[in-house]
Amino acid sequence: MSGALATWIDGAAAWHIPADDRGLQYGDGLFETLSLRNGRARFLELHLARLARGCACLRIPFDAMPELRADIDAASACAPARALLKIIVTRGSPRRRGYAADHDASPRRIVSLFAEDSPPMPAQGVELAVASLRIADNPALAGIKHLNRLENVLASTEARAAGAFDALLLGGDGRVVSGAMTNLFVVSSGAVATPPVDRAGVAGVMRTAVLRECVALGLTATERTLTMTDLHGADEAFVSNARIGVVPVRRVGQHGFTMNSVGLRIAAHLESLDA
Amino acid sequence: MSGALATWIDGAAAWHIPADDRGLQYGDGLFETLSLRNGRARFLELHLARLARGCACLRIPFDAMPELRADIDAASACAPARALLKIIVTRGSPRRRGYAADHDASPRRIVSLFAEDSPPMPAQGVELAVASLRIADNPALAGIKHLNRLENVLASTEARAAGAFDALLLGGDGRVVSGAMTNLFVVSSGAVATPPVDRAGVAGVMRTAVLRECVALGLTATERTLTMTDLHGADEAFVSNARIGVVPVRRVGQHGFTMNSVGLRIAAHLESLDA
Repeated sequence: MSGALATWIDGAAAWHIPADDRGLQYGDGLFETLSLRNGRARFLELHLARLARGCACLRIPFDAMPELRADIDAASACAPARALLKIIVTRGSPRRRGYAADHDASPRRIVSLFAEDSPPMPAQGVELAVASLRIADNPALAGIKHLNRLENVLASTEARAAGAFDALLLGGDGRVVSGAMTNLFVVSSGAVATPPVDRAGVAGVMRTAVLRECVALGLTATERTLTMTDLHGADEAFVSNARIGVVPVRRVGQHGFTMNSVGLRIAAHLESLDA
Repeated sequence: MSGALATWIDGAAAWHIPADDRGLQYGDGLFETLSLRNGRARFLELHLARLARGCACLRIPFDAMPELRADIDAASACAPARALLKIIVTRGSPRRRGYAADHDASPRRIVSLFAEDSPPMPAQGVELAVASLRIADNPALAGIKHLNRLENVLASTEARAAGAFDALLLGGDGRVVSGAMTNLFVVSSGAVATPPVDRAGVAGVMRTAVLRECVALGLTATERTLTMTDLHGADEAFVSNARIGVVPVRRVGQHGFTMNSVGLRIAAHLESLDA
């Protein structure tokens, strides 16, 4: 199970799902990756709120949020001090084949616990490789963390082969969208900005936390369209996701960043939160 | 199992797959839906060739084509006279979590047999409902039959709710792409045309067969960009897929088609092929 310590399927310990699950058949579902610290899920409410938004967007009639919270409690109770929890909610097994969804689908939830044993983020920051593919504009699916992730797979595989931490995804018009597994922020004259996610990309939970906590730190933080010129002209850049928190970027392709003080300040603040 | 008569996973009869399969986690895989007639898979070589192209495109190192052929033979041997075979090939279970693919992945194949018990296509043709979502341009993934099918799910669900046979998918620029589960053709002054699938849509096996067999029938058949104006101005229209073959379209949204002779001629020819 690629290192999972345990998996619960609809609340029962199990390693397998029915092969007719629409999550497999069509990527018809959503996921969340939560960071657990000392048996506590960080930013839990942000994760569950995004999951609920995704279900509403895809019209997956998921009504087992209390049961999912119980799954998370059960996993947290046996988790190592640093752990990850991956939650998948699919539209479940259909009553007949074909793309069209049953109006009364029975969603399935899959919760897997992993030890977080990745090496610590390098103090000097990480490198991004600009992905060769351009990510598609898809307003009907943008923002939510659905299971259709082939673009992320292709870009991440390419970035790993290049020795980079993550891929930088650009839209068809060349604008900066996000990392393949992270959201990207730039800092210019002390102001923080990140691209909107209304056409492509995921509204990361840590992205939401950064935008919120910048206010607490007295920093201006906005969503705005960013070009590669904006990125290269920025004083610093950083990436975020639920697993890594906030980590400075020291290089994007051939462009290096020498500053990281705002990113490190936000990182330390988020790390200190009792969330 | 949503009506499957049997399922084979890597050649063994089974109903479940490991929950860490990347087909579920990311839609990281491909599929084919074959029509079986009297125990014989129609257009088998076209299906397997497209599957191989998809694997190459996604760099899934699938080397079990002989074993897959044996699976198909086994399923065919116990199939009812009219049956469907759904083949899924995924990148399998990974050695570690995350989007990036293992360079030495072990793909998984899933073969499910269904009785084809759908009602016959209506003699007067089918209706299409224009999908409200616009399908994304995605040249890196266009043409192959990958598992990232949320657009098709959303459009098909909407079309079913509207009582239509299929959804008509338009690109962001308004051009006609395809049906959600079919390819679309128009006939104008005896010439057959279908949209290219290099930016969005699937290169359907039956689409390939139609383009090929039009030559045998002395018909001109080309791939070209089609607008809604082209569609409305056409003499007739028809849709194709491996399950239904070729079926005339009698209505798209508010626009009706009264002619169907070329579509019916192609349909009868394809039906008669010993393929």
